[in-house]
Amino acid sequence: MSAVPPAHRTLRITLAYDGTHYAGWQVQPEEATIQSALEQALEQLTGQPIRVTASGRTDAGVHALGQVASCTLASPMSADTLCRALNACTPPDISIRSVSDAGPGFHAIRDAIQKRYRYVIQDGGFRDPFLRNYAWQTPARLDEQAMATAARLLLGTHDFASFQASGSPRVSTTRTITEIVVERRAGDLRDRIEIEVTADGFLYNMVRNIVGTLVEIGRGNESPAWISRVLSARDRRMAGPTAPPQGLFLVWVRYPGDP
Amino acid sequence: MSAVPPAHRTLRITLAYDGTHYAGWQVQPEEATIQSALEQALEQLTGQPIRVTASGRTDAGVHALGQVASCTLASPMSADTLCRALNACTPPDISIRSVSDAGPGFHAIRDAIQKRYRYVIQDGGFRDPFLRNYAWQTPARLDEQAMATAARLLLGTHDFASFQASGSPRVSTTRTITEIVVERRAGDLRDRIEIEVTADGFLYNMVRNIVGTLVEIGRGNESPAWISRVLSARDRRMAGPTAPPQGLFLVWVRYPGDP
Repeated sequence: MSAVPPAHRTLRITLAYDGTHYAGWQVQPEEATIQSALEQALEQLTGQPIRVTASGRTDAGVHALGQVASCTLASPMSADTLCRALNACTPPDISIRSVSDAGPGFHAIRDAIQKRYRYVIQDGGFRDPFLRNYAWQTPARLDEQAMATAARLLLGTHDFASFQASGSPRVSTTRTITEIVVERRAGDLRDRIEIEVTADGFLYNMVRNIVGTLVEIGRGNESPAWISRVLSARDRRMAGPTAPPQGLFLVWVRYPGDP
Repeated sequence: MSAVPPAHRTLRITLAYDGTHYAGWQVQPEEATIQSALEQALEQLTGQPIRVTASGRTDAGVHALGQVASCTLASPMSADTLCRALNACTPPDISIRSVSDAGPGFHAIRDAIQKRYRYVIQDGGFRDPFLRNYAWQTPARLDEQAMATAARLLLGTHDFASFQASGSPRVSTTRTITEIVVERRAGDLRDRIEIEVTADGFLYNMVRNIVGTLVEIGRGNESPAWISRVLSARDRRMAGPTAPPQGLFLVWVRYPGDP
């Protein structure tokens, strides 16, 4: 034990989680959430109540491969030791991938410059029982070529108000999608469609609303060009339904200086 | 409704299931099992109590991509209609892949001529939260080359008594392994080792005991050649521990006349 109390540090914590059994990221009374599991683990390690901030709140049932959280704490442990110790204190459906010391004032929401999400759809035929919590399972076979054509029309800087959950309080609804890929992939039992979207930021439910709109096109209910009319309408009522949460994965978050 | 009661048919049912929430295949009082879920679905469809037989009983937590079950029933429905109707009556962690009319007397255990199992190990580093119910997660990094070398020594016809659960009542413990492959595969978060074993039949716990033995070699506790001494000892106490159930998948079962 050092007689000098350790100085406060700002940590960047990268974590993966299976969101199936959680009421989302954010602390809620009486509910298991990712944030409360992480804060409990940090309190167990440091003896201090610690508040963590994520790059964005994921909803109930949504998963993360590379969520980023920030917090400040006083601890003499190295970042690697903290990572191992946190993994020992978190349940098996949450994994701490890495912990590093960030610059003072690092803030996981405010400093994020780019994010990638993935959405998984298992379409047609019998349900893959291993995807029931990790995909939108829809009985109709979808036309992934039409969906890919439509998705490309969303590339670039646009006002995405049509794809924002109604009632959201954002000041600006303009975002830049730098990459959007729709691909069919083979699996052991069933193939699936994966949609990956990279942007400088996302409105609330934006990926799930884009996916719900692409699925209308994949089903043949609308043509690929329809998505441009939805986009320019800036009206949530024009877009397709919100895709269910369990198909959504936060893949990674980028910050200034990241490779 | 036909006035003539439908004749009895023998069905071959191919199904996939996530075994996480089941006490295994076999009906047990007070426990959720795959067999009881399937029998309940069949009773719901036909109004008759129906007994199904699987190619082999999987243990609690063990999964299947292509389990095969047989039963006899009287129903005027086509095999395809039965398949769709069964999928509507089974929970989302069980999927009926196909139903077909088999020759009279078809019996899923007795007639099986070949089976393949897969075992998944996630070794080293942080745990992948998405594999917690689908792999043996072990903190040590394993040498998959040494494991592959050892695995090849099991190819062919041998007395596998050393790899049979102690107290098993089999008359003969000789089996023929026609293929055994150990491969490291990339994943989104973590790579994994997959071991696939194909044989004319398996003793109780044979795959899990082979895997437990290969992991001793992968950890460097034993050399690859040790597995030949284990095999020739015909003594369960010589082999490694039984690998946990959640890494095991029944991949497929072959019958005479299958392509």
